[in-house]
Amino acid sequence: MHLLVIGAAGMVGRKFIEKLATTGALGGKAIAKATLTDVVAPSAPAGAPFACACSANDLSAPGVAETLVAGRPDTIVHLAAIVSGEAEADFEKGYRINLDGTQRLFEAIRAVGDGYRPRLVFTSSIAVFGAPFPDKIGDTFFHTPLTSYGTQKAIGELLLADYSRRGFFDGVAIRLPTIVVRPGKPNKAASGFFSGILREPLAGQEAILPVADDVRHWVASPRAAVHFLEHAAGLDTDGLGARRNLTMPGLSVTVGEMIAALGRVAGPKAVSLIRREPDPVIVKIVAGWPRNFDPERALSLGFKAEPDMDTIIRAHIEDELGGKIGG
Amino acid sequence: MHLLVIGAAGMVGRKFIEKLATTGALGGKAIAKATLTDVVAPSAPAGAPFACACSANDLSAPGVAETLVAGRPDTIVHLAAIVSGEAEADFEKGYRINLDGTQRLFEAIRAVGDGYRPRLVFTSSIAVFGAPFPDKIGDTFFHTPLTSYGTQKAIGELLLADYSRRGFFDGVAIRLPTIVVRPGKPNKAASGFFSGILREPLAGQEAILPVADDVRHWVASPRAAVHFLEHAAGLDTDGLGARRNLTMPGLSVTVGEMIAALGRVAGPKAVSLIRREPDPVIVKIVAGWPRNFDPERALSLGFKAEPDMDTIIRAHIEDELGGKIGG
Repeated sequence: MHLLVIGAAGMVGRKFIEKLATTGALGGKAIAKATLTDVVAPSAPAGAPFACACSANDLSAPGVAETLVAGRPDTIVHLAAIVSGEAEADFEKGYRINLDGTQRLFEAIRAVGDGYRPRLVFTSSIAVFGAPFPDKIGDTFFHTPLTSYGTQKAIGELLLADYSRRGFFDGVAIRLPTIVVRPGKPNKAASGFFSGILREPLAGQEAILPVADDVRHWVASPRAAVHFLEHAAGLDTDGLGARRNLTMPGLSVTVGEMIAALGRVAGPKAVSLIRREPDPVIVKIVAGWPRNFDPERALSLGFKAEPDMDTIIRAHIEDELGGKIGG
Repeated sequence: MHLLVIGAAGMVGRKFIEKLATTGALGGKAIAKATLTDVVAPSAPAGAPFACACSANDLSAPGVAETLVAGRPDTIVHLAAIVSGEAEADFEKGYRINLDGTQRLFEAIRAVGDGYRPRLVFTSSIAVFGAPFPDKIGDTFFHTPLTSYGTQKAIGELLLADYSRRGFFDGVAIRLPTIVVRPGKPNKAASGFFSGILREPLAGQEAILPVADDVRHWVASPRAAVHFLEHAAGLDTDGLGARRNLTMPGLSVTVGEMIAALGRVAGPKAVSLIRREPDPVIVKIVAGWPRNFDPERALSLGFKAEPDMDTIIRAHIEDELGGKIGG
């Protein structure tokens, strides 16, 4: 089986590839070859039992998508995107990468013809939804994104459903929750603090909390994100019908509950490293974000997320800190 | 006030322009000039109290949208589209006209800059919805189009909302019901019979009914469509917030109820001209169409449709048959 991963150098992409390197398979099929690409060349995972071809590419440039699908990959995982904040700051860049890039990929697959019909997994986002919301957002709630990023993801979902319906590929879009705990340095995403208030104290460092403790959000771990991708790649799509865009399961949790879990797992010293410094800009942005879902369909299709925050924090300690709390 | 109408040669476009020729105003402002365009040059309406510039244009061709908006029209009404059946039969043409054409128009408006922010009215469709449905489709039901046409309209809605949110124009999208009674010759649209079973008997001619009498659908008259456009052009958009895509009101009616109304208005002889000839292809297509809506938002914003089928039939007799039932 030939796998193509676009956006393979990002956090979720890297973890996905590393997992595949340990299992050697995806969707029940052994991987013979993986083509990994991103705007910067991804690294091949250590010890992978399959061949890796890594390259740097801009999916939105003419001809790139055609070259990537020329080898007729059996499964295509499309993770490449400009993040929310950047797509809002640079309107043209966001549409070029997130919309044109996705359209070019879909069109390149269609142009192959000749019965070629790969499985395509596309990472969408809960940013396709915009406030005001019901208490729990169900599977038939409408999409009124409040950002250009969410708009671009919602359009990608519509195109994926239509191209799948027409038989050009066999698509599944998965709307990822906010991923917590993201490893690495703090970034400038407005959602960054959800990871920061756990990651920094677990490493013995101070973290800033810019919103109130009662702010509720929808989160899942990097491990869950990798599972979503693996499960979507192997999913029996006959059961999906025309509705190929799925809200992934997650955990609806308040900031206060996240901090309480940190206390249970890492003790009061870790909690004391969180400094409350309200930021009205972030408070306003976060107020428009989804808080809770009822992802019935994804659950019935076998997608799974963590049952509680303690599990998410322990996974981070195992995966990123070698099992040891710092500080 | 300078008005630009794109798709002005279609049935709804023509009726809209003819109405404006009698009122001389739109959204409470006198029309000084109307630029009317379509793939074939529209005709200027007789006796209009404003200047008309009519031209043939393909909105999807490079540079056309830029030329159309160069005169900085205050209000733009975008009706141009390849219809559902053709967009399904010709995938590339549908995306080129319905998606690329719309994107080119939106981008041309954005490119003007310099504080230019016209009112933009876009005709969407109930084809953005796909079965299975609830009994009544509410304003927050999701979009899962089952045709490429519906996909293209749903994407147009998302772009309209994002470009409006960013301040590039002040957009309103109106999802039209199936328009009944369409004047003119029978066309090949799968929905054509909804008009045909009324129009043909009212003109003394035989009509074919390809579905069962209990088929329910969502309809409004050409008069209502013109009112929707006028009302959308003058709407106070402050009340819309970020949700600029509106399901228009209509009448949920069965084929049997339509025929009963025909009998009340035109007598049993008209009804006897309807020949039942079930067509499994049309039966299947129609089964995926919306049947009923709860268009609360549009109603609260002052959009109005006909209260009953008799009114719709009488309007057709007045507007198209000079008040006289034929045959």
